[in-house]
This record gives sequence, C-alpha cells and structure tokens, in this order.
Amino acid sequence: MDLLLAKQRVHEARVGRLGTITRDGRPHLVPVSFALLDEVVYTAVDAKPKSTLELRRLQNIEANRATCMLVDHYDEVWTHLWWVRLDGSARIVRSGPEAERAKNALSAKYPQYETVAIPGPVIAFEIAAWAVWP
Amino acid sequence: MDLLLAKQRVHEARVGRLGTITRDGRPHLVPVSFALLDEVVYTAVDAKPKSTLELRRLQNIEANRATCMLVDHYDEVWTHLWWVRLDGSARIVRSGPEAERAKNALSAKYPQYETVAIPGPVIAFEIAAWAVWP
Repeated sequence: MDLLLAKQRVHEARVGRLGTITRDGRPHLVPVSFALLDEVVYTAVDAKPKSTLELRRLQNIEANRATCMLVDHYDEVWTHLWWVRLDGSARIVRSGPEAERAKNALSAKYPQYETVAIPGPVIAFEIAAWAVWP
Repeated sequence: MDLLLAKQRVHEARVGRLGTITRDGRPHLVPVSFALLDEVVYTAVDAKPKSTLELRRLQNIEANRATCMLVDHYDEVWTHLWWVRLDGSARIVRSGPEAERAKNALSAKYPQYETVAIPGPVIAFEIAAWAVWP
C-alpha cells in the first residue's frame, strides 16, 4: 500500500482504535470516530453515553502524549486484509478556532452528529509516522 | 452489556486489536486473529505476509507484559455501538502442549488456517479485567 492510498483509507474509515498509556503505564484502547485534516487526526468527547472510565483517554494524554491509532480492514479473505498505523502525539484542545474546526470536520464526516452533540474537548493527534501493511 | 454477553461477543469476534507498549514507552496497536479459551486470549504469529516490524509485538511483550485487547462493533446506527476491553498481561509460548492447544483453537475458529500455516510462537494473553460499554 502506498502512502496516498493509506491516507485515502484513513480519511474514509468510519472508526479507528486509539491507543494511549495509562498513568500506571498500561496500554489503553478505545474505538473512536475521527476526522483527518492534513496530518492531524481529530476526535472528540461527544454525547454518546459514557461509562465513568470513558474520559480516561483524556487523563492519559494529559500525563503522556504518546498516542497510536490503528485503522484496519478485516475480511474473511485474508489476502484482502490491510491496516494503517499512525504514531504520534496528542494534545487536548478545549476551545477556540481549532476545536471549532475539528467539530465541523467531524460533523461533516458523520451525519450522526446532527443528533449527537459534541460538548466535550477535542483530541488533536499529530501524526509523526505512518506504517502500512501490506 | 453483562459479562456473559461480553464473553460471547469476544468469543465470536473475528478480529481484535492488541495493544502493547514499545521499548521506548509508546503504545503499539495491531489487529489480530485470536481464540478465547477460558480467561486466556491466544493469538499466533502466522504465515500471513509480515512487514519487518510485524514481530514488534513479541519484542514489546518480552520487555513489558502489560497488554490490552479491544473487541468492538462499529455500526452507522450509533445506538448499536459496543465494545469490550480486556486488560491483562501477555507471555510468549514458543512450543509445548499450551502452544499446540492454542494453535488447535485458532484452526478450529478460522478455516483460513487450513491454508495459512502457524509457524511462529503463540501469545498467551491472560485477562485480568473485563470492561464493557455500554
């Protein structure tokens, strides 16, 4: 897979899995809706029902910015499998023009945001490296 | 979601995303085929084509056993979304009866293993905690 195709696949993907590190040094994974703008992935704490632990991703990023996101395709025909892994560092954007831009991009990608609010902060995940397979 | 349903969903899931920590302390995600046997998730280094970095998951686990696996369902109807997160610690099983048992379980779950060999070691991921949403 070349980088152009990888970017297209990430751009079009409906879900990604975001990996951060907890304060006690453990990996922590959560599925996210996201929008890719240039070399930044934006995801937001939206109004989907949350468990009490759901905001752990924000605590993790506040303590350790190292972040990974995986976008992959599963298929029973294993020659059709692929994945794109993004490595980089995340920061939390609580308000301002960047948060607005991110929420607009999320709303443009997901019609679901017409009925699900995005009250929470935005995570801006700056991609430092793309890894692709195959 | 109760624990019984969570176990059934993990048991039936065709793909999971495995998170480990690299030697330089970064989160690392990879999609995996896996089999759940009691409270242990088994996944193996099989003969799917690998990038040179593909064995990173083994290096990571050798240095740091902390492991997370996410099984989730994406649906455009967001009220249908769910995920199960498994937290625990992994170890590498290179041969012996446990490795055979794991490879048999993988072959029983995935007919693809009739034509894809499992030459590599097995990762035994011992689940310490189940988290579910919603």
